[in-house]
Amino acid sequence: MQMAMAQRIKVIKIGGNVIDNAEALADFCEKFRRLAGPKVLVHGGGKEASRLEAALGLETKMIEGRRVTSAESLDVVTMVYAGLINKRIVARLQAIGVDAIGMSGADADIIKAVRRSPDPIDYGFVGDISPLDVRSDMFMKLLAMGLTPVVCAIMHDGDGQLLNCNADSVASAVARGLSSLSKVDLIYCFEKPGVLMDADDDNSVIGEIDSEKFESLKSAGVVSKGMIPKLQNALGALRGGVSEVYIKSARNLLEPTGTLLRL
Amino acid sequence: MQMAMAQRIKVIKIGGNVIDNAEALADFCEKFRRLAGPKVLVHGGGKEASRLEAALGLETKMIEGRRVTSAESLDVVTMVYAGLINKRIVARLQAIGVDAIGMSGADADIIKAVRRSPDPIDYGFVGDISPLDVRSDMFMKLLAMGLTPVVCAIMHDGDGQLLNCNADSVASAVARGLSSLSKVDLIYCFEKPGVLMDADDDNSVIGEIDSEKFESLKSAGVVSKGMIPKLQNALGALRGGVSEVYIKSARNLLEPTGTLLRL
Repeated sequence: MQMAMAQRIKVIKIGGNVIDNAEALADFCEKFRRLAGPKVLVHGGGKEASRLEAALGLETKMIEGRRVTSAESLDVVTMVYAGLINKRIVARLQAIGVDAIGMSGADADIIKAVRRSPDPIDYGFVGDISPLDVRSDMFMKLLAMGLTPVVCAIMHDGDGQLLNCNADSVASAVARGLSSLSKVDLIYCFEKPGVLMDADDDNSVIGEIDSEKFESLKSAGVVSKGMIPKLQNALGALRGGVSEVYIKSARNLLEPTGTLLRL
Repeated sequence: MQMAMAQRIKVIKIGGNVIDNAEALADFCEKFRRLAGPKVLVHGGGKEASRLEAALGLETKMIEGRRVTSAESLDVVTMVYAGLINKRIVARLQAIGVDAIGMSGADADIIKAVRRSPDPIDYGFVGDISPLDVRSDMFMKLLAMGLTPVVCAIMHDGDGQLLNCNADSVASAVARGLSSLSKVDLIYCFEKPGVLMDADDDNSVIGEIDSEKFESLKSAGVVSKGMIPKLQNALGALRGGVSEVYIKSARNLLEPTGTLLRL
């Protein structure tokens, strides 16, 4: 049975810059509370996992700028993301009246991932998600009960294995999955007020980016590194049926600012 | 709105002896899967938290045999109980077809606790629960959706503070809370096949214990230490409306063995 929802669903993603700072997190939670309508929060990791790895004497292994998730490392991110950070956010949201429910992908089988092929590069226990792996009807039931899912980036493969995933991709997959049943807006919160024309000038926010402009910005080197996969996720979400995608600062969550993505 | 449930609900509690042993946990999960009807799993901690505390150089402080939960210690148990152990169990159950959903007390505000008074002994971030703090209607909705809540012993105070609680007490409070809406059986799994007349003889299981017999066993020194609060929790659950309470081995979950508690 599929359920339709009259109101637009908002999927919000936050990362380390909000999570690592108690004041920023409290400020975000208050703004998130005031966001009307059904909503889903997806959160990334932050520095706590690296700190714990260092304290445990685990080596943080990176290949081409991406973290390798060993078995020990998977335990650490499961503890930090699904345990400490997720429950801290849920307790904070509950305290201000948001009926939050913290979830990994394994909980209610809400999101499945597939372990990334070790060929050509073995990233360990890292997973990739397709929107088809999102249990959208379960999300809808939880939302219809007035609950607000707070989702960390630890998924499962359905065969008992937990997998570490990219939180931007989780947010995109959730938004795309839900867009088959409802109108969905996806908002990526990050440390800057939007995609910047000049990385050193916070006043240079690019108001709108479509696929064509993305290619030209990429060629011109205006967007690079971490912003490229973020924009690819955003455009992928639009192609997958998401109504609107924004990239903006968590501080401006309630304001009509930031970068709007278009196809 | 209160919902009634035709089938008896089973609340099962497992502890360290199941959690710390991968084989015992897999065996338990398979038996738990075969247990018919709506069910809730409550799990305790195990050795992993102490191991992590030791690895982090945190001192495990005990007063009168009970662990003191400092702020750092609370972070550790939140990571281990709500993160690592909870998600490991949920992923395992999902793999064998149980639609498990992992929860702390904060998730969907399902169980609130009150921080224990620091007077006369300050146990730190430790909480106590009353069955009135259990959101029984939410449990019933999740069960009616075919979900199986898997609850760790990390609760919240509703004001943003997470609290470390005793898993036996959590199981008792959940069972009592649900007994206002349904018939409920509570099963405490532990390392022995039941309450033993002779601690060294596994064949000396006491088939039934009522309040009177409890007092005489206590006076005779047959039950002592950890078993006394367990039996008090069990009898409290019966007084609170729970239909049947069993103390038995996880290995015998599906067999009519163990100790049956009566008022």
